[in-house]
Amino acid sequence: MTDASPTTDPALATLEEAECWQLLAGAELGRFAVIAGDGVDIFPVNFLVKNNLIYFASAPGSKLIDLTLNPQVAFEADGIADRRRWSVVVKGTATRVGFDTEIEESGVKDLHSMAPTEKWNYVRIDPRVTTGRRFSASRTTV
Amino acid sequence: MTDASPTTDPALATLEEAECWQLLAGAELGRFAVIAGDGVDIFPVNFLVKNNLIYFASAPGSKLIDLTLNPQVAFEADGIADRRRWSVVVKGTATRVGFDTEIEESGVKDLHSMAPTEKWNYVRIDPRVTTGRRFSASRTTV
Repeated sequence: MTDASPTTDPALATLEEAECWQLLAGAELGRFAVIAGDGVDIFPVNFLVKNNLIYFASAPGSKLIDLTLNPQVAFEADGIADRRRWSVVVKGTATRVGFDTEIEESGVKDLHSMAPTEKWNYVRIDPRVTTGRRFSASRTTV
Repeated sequence: MTDASPTTDPALATLEEAECWQLLAGAELGRFAVIAGDGVDIFPVNFLVKNNLIYFASAPGSKLIDLTLNPQVAFEADGIADRRRWSVVVKGTATRVGFDTEIEESGVKDLHSMAPTEKWNYVRIDPRVTTGRRFSASRTTV
């Protein structure tokens, strides 16, 4: 389980980073993974991509992790394109967006239409490593 | 971001644990999140459920994390049922399955049809906490 060598599996194709961002830009649902306690937690989120940054909204009253304590996160989205499944993973730093101008310009407010009067939190992921793969029709696994 | 109070969002419904396992049993693709270095990593995996345990296969030569060092993992799967999106998160302990009898009886070998002659690794997640939610049509986010 510690083998970190590149895969030689013919059923996997590595994506260029530009293609990863194109695919992310066309996706809606991602999964956000953070350190929580002595393990990890994972949340499904609607997201958008702006200037190769990932934005999502965290609902009022929902349970999210303290990002100032554990800012190193991972994010995954996947989908089907050209009849094959793709998956992109972004590892980076998550921060709560504090500036109204950035919130407005990112368009992240449009991600939620419910409870418009409540205070949402907005999160941005600054990518450090972006990787993507395309899988054969017969399998999707690592 | 540290608010851990239960959500009061009317667009979210909490699922019973039995329903979580029913939904997981009908799903194929999940995401496996583990601690990696000073952050987390996340992998898409085909999986199956057997006796309320989660099994998946890790391809030969692929990059997975040392589970003996960081066994506390999180797993997420989601889908559409009754026109609404659901998401189930399982937090638990991941171990590499070492016994051929368990590998056979779980059915996890059937998850991959490629490269049948190569040596795969099989991973089991023993759940500690299983939670699920159903979202309104208009949003999927935490």
